Amino acid sequence: MSEHTKDNSRGGLLGQPSSRRDFIRKTALSAFVGGAAAACSTDASGAQQSKLTEADHSGGSMAPNPAPVSVAAAAEAMDKMHEAGIKAFPAQTAGKGNQLLKPRIEKGVKIFDITAKKISWQTAPGQFVEAWAYNEQVPGPQIRVREGDRVRLNIKNELSESTAVHFHGVELPNDQDGVPFITQPPIKPGQSYTYEFTAPNPGSHMYHSHHNAATQVGLGMLGAFIIEPKNPDPIEKADIDYVMVLNDGAHGYTFNGKSFPATEPIVAKRGQKVRIRFMNEGMMIHPMHLHGMHMTIIAKDGWNVPAPWKCDTLNVSPGERWDVIVNCNNLGTWAFHCHILPHAESDHGMFGMVTALVVK
Amino acid sequence: MSEHTKDNSRGGLLGQPSSRRDFIRKTALSAFVGGAAAACSTDASGAQQSKLTEADHSGGSMAPNPAPVSVAAAAEAMDKMHEAGIKAFPAQTAGKGNQLLKPRIEKGVKIFDITAKKISWQTAPGQFVEAWAYNEQVPGPQIRVREGDRVRLNIKNELSESTAVHFHGVELPNDQDGVPFITQPPIKPGQSYTYEFTAPNPGSHMYHSHHNAATQVGLGMLGAFIIEPKNPDPIEKADIDYVMVLNDGAHGYTFNGKSFPATEPIVAKRGQKVRIRFMNEGMMIHPMHLHGMHMTIIAKDGWNVPAPWKCDTLNVSPGERWDVIVNCNNLGTWAFHCHILPHAESDHGMFGMVTALVVK
Amino acid sequence: MSEHTKDNSRGGLLGQPSSRRDFIRKTALSAFVGGAAAACSTDASGAQQSKLTEADHSGGSMAPNPAPVSVAAAAEAMDKMHEAGIKAFPAQTAGKGNQLLKPRIEKGVKIFDITAKKISWQTAPGQFVEAWAYNEQVPGPQIRVREGDRVRLNIKNELSESTAVHFHGVELPNDQDGVPFITQPPIKPGQSYTYEFTAPNPGSHMYHSHHNAATQVGLGMLGAFIIEPKNPDPIEKADIDYVMVLNDGAHGYTFNGKSFPATEPIVAKRGQKVRIRFMNEGMMIHPMHLHGMHMTIIAKDGWNVPAPWKCDTLNVSPGERWDVIVNCNNLGTWAFHCHILPHAESDHGMFGMVTALVVK
Repeated sequence: MSEHTKDNSRGGLLGQPSSRRDFIRKTALSAFVGGAAAACSTDASGAQQSKLTEADHSGGSMAPNPAPVSVAAAAEAMDKMHEAGIKAFPAQTAGKGNQLLKPRIEKGVKIFDITAKKISWQTAPGQFVEAWAYNEQVPGPQIRVREGDRVRLNIKNELSESTAVHFHGVELPNDQDGVPFITQPPIKPGQSYTYEFTAPNPGSHMYHSHHNAATQVGLGMLGAFIIEPKNPDPIEKADIDYVMVLNDGAHGYTFNGKSFPATEPIVAKRGQKVRIRFMNEGMMIHPMHLHGMHMTIIAKDGWNVPAPWKCDTLNVSPGERWDVIVNCNNLGTWAFHCHILPHAESDHGMFGMVTALVVK
Repeated sequence: MSEHTKDNSRGGLLGQPSSRRDFIRKTALSAFVGGAAAACSTDASGAQQSKLTEADHSGGSMAPNPAPVSVAAAAEAMDKMHEAGIKAFPAQTAGKGNQLLKPRIEKGVKIFDITAKKISWQTAPGQFVEAWAYNEQVPGPQIRVREGDRVRLNIKNELSESTAVHFHGVELPNDQDGVPFITQPPIKPGQSYTYEFTAPNPGSHMYHSHHNAATQVGLGMLGAFIIEPKNPDPIEKADIDYVMVLNDGAHGYTFNGKSFPATEPIVAKRGQKVRIRFMNEGMMIHPMHLHGMHMTIIAKDGWNVPAPWKCDTLNVSPGERWDVIVNCNNLGTWAFHCHILPHAESDHGMFGMVTALVVK
Repeated sequence: MSEHTKDNSRGGLLGQPSSRRDFIRKTALSAFVGGAAAACSTDASGAQQSKLTEADHSGGSMAPNPAPVSVAAAAEAMDKMHEAGIKAFPAQTAGKGNQLLKPRIEKGVKIFDITAKKISWQTAPGQFVEAWAYNEQVPGPQIRVREGDRVRLNIKNELSESTAVHFHGVELPNDQDGVPFITQPPIKPGQSYTYEFTAPNPGSHMYHSHHNAATQVGLGMLGAFIIEPKNPDPIEKADIDYVMVLNDGAHGYTFNGKSFPATEPIVAKRGQKVRIRFMNEGMMIHPMHLHGMHMTIIAKDGWNVPAPWKCDTLNVSPGERWDVIVNCNNLGTWAFHCHILPHAESDHGMFGMVTALVVK
């Protein structure tokens, strides 16, 4: 057993986005300085002491007592798998979804060109899935416009079946609503189609297929559609504006198209305010739990709530969007995951709907 | 490719309830005017242009490029199934649930006679299921009384097993609560039983079996029980008051006992306020998503909320009731469905928990 | 058919906690006074009359009409099973979870000793399951401290695999957060580990495993961790403070580790205020429905809500905590259950997530 003084490597946290992976590896390793002993914090806000005591266990797998050899070995083997997952985070994978799409501007109209086609998509190390994607991204590119903007979207369908795009939450004229045979014909394979409208109600919205949608959305035909308000409420001001699309379809349990350890951490400086826009494009609820800090709920489906409220576990149902603010006042790497535990962990370690909020 | 001027047939929307089906057929067809080309709206609030461009596709299924013949044919075949579902909406089926039951009045008491029996129930064209129903309706007849009314319900059990009626959400004296062996004996096959009480807390409540209820409620023994307040809040005033009972049991995914395309559209005039009373009698959540307009939540389980809030996707959990107001200010036929997509669409087209809000 | 006068045995309700079981048996039996006839209440607030009419059914199972012999016999057999379940409530079982753990105090620090080990746990009469438990309880012992208290938890791992304890909802310094390989090493079999911190944000929180958690929490490694506020809001004052942990893992559908009829009723006197702290440690939603009275929601995840709201069916999602107040103003034994009916009743009677709130 050992008493530790402050572990400075822990205080450093993520220096630069480019060093995240190394950092997190170091963080994980730092926990093992001194064999199986734990770190100790002198943080003024709380803990002063944290000890790991061992019986006859000296860090190896052969401790004869109290755990028999086979038990200790089996536990050690499981822990190694769990550790490997954590150390791999954030793992590199091919492709990145939800990238901001810069519009072309013609005669004052913001124009977005979107092509739907079948691709191979990597969700985690070694995991490749078939995706039907917008601009080869899952989620499709993030579209951001401003309330009152004139917006045009040119959709090209390179899939083998028809499609259509619905702007979920956006209060459009009926013929721009994207529902085949009700508001438009389907966009057939090989065809293109243009939507055009003036951006109405601001907020966190989505665009996705509304044709054979259980299949098409499940395979990736979805993205964030954000309309920024002309006059934002003061509570909306944030240093970081992060979109987190939840999904649970053919690609497994994902945040922005990736599964842990390939999910992306959110990195903030102490004192910053992070706005998270949760969007559920799946078929299941996902109660999102943040460690270490609470979330203040400021908007539902793009509409500011009349009385912001606080929680650490926010139930996000299919089709819902919730905007929250996190005041990043607690240093460290904080687990951030769906609290339906089988969506986040197995006996092989964490997977799926897990990421971290890192406050440095 | 063609540029269209305003499609007046679209502006007409549903003329009369009796012409809904024709209308919707016409709407669907109007989308095909000009071959595969789309309509264009000049609605002042937004869209001015909407184009469908074709590669070498001239409306037939033989376009050689870019979609190969077999792809185009398969896509066309799928679209035909989707189109057929939409065109059939709202489909005629035998039986209508949730019909307002007018009470007999004796000595100031409003008396409702309810018989539970097994029937055959049609949920959609060609789909017949066994139902255990109140007054041969699924949901059972809608009961509406006023706060303070003296109410009597005569229940006759013509089923092959015992039953009892619980008034879900109604704060009754204990012996009227309908739980066999706790507040009353079960009502055995062939027996009758009378509940009588003064209508207490107003709001959107339900009545349903509380005996072998997972089976009996799943088979249809449920209905809306609404207590209108003596002094309604101004926010409750609406032009149309619509009850929508959600279910997902033995009868499949239904709204008021019917599956799309046999669900009932809600039809309103522009400028009208529609109050929708969602009631979930199933075993699953159903996040209800309205296109084109938002919902203002005014009550939960019959209790007015302290601060009404807005959304377009409302998660309704089993046993919950939510009252919302929709200001019908956006013309058109708007899809209105559960956003768990497998409850609403398959590769054969929309089914189950889909209907429309039509603003004309 | 018979007309009854007031059934006084019903008015008595639970005299003392020690007589609960007898009481409830008597209540159930009283419903059968007069054969199959029902009780009648003269409660001023409502019901005056409640009748059970029989056709040719005189209490036996041989009534020839209208229900044929076999139908009546089958119905009777089912009812007997349902009755037996109710009569057995609250059934005695071995073991009681969620017992308040009194801390040792050393130099002003409140110390809690917790040992994790595998045990046999009884969830209902005749139902024994393997549990991985804290201090041989499921849920683990209830820990209550006060905001600002210095708290130390000594965790001893007597399991065959590693573990760690996360304090869900408690805003701790990062190295006390309990996530192996991120904030600490795992606590290996045979090892002990100490957490120490100053109790921060007050409210209804939880502690549970955060290592191989889908398995470990599912098997019982969870408990309530309550931080009482220095300055409680007046709305929080209650006569009874009840913790109800919901679970649906390897142990079936349980409240505080027990399934109906072994669940514990909440017993209050008329006029008392009961605070219920719902905590969902399972993988599914549980919309909790209270009969006879409504709940006023006062806190979410330990944070007081800005505008308390009312309901009778509260959706509790995994990881969420909801605090509610019930004003016990309605006499009787009230069913209180999850409204996903297959979590609460089968054709063999009520089971799982069912209990009662008894107002006497």
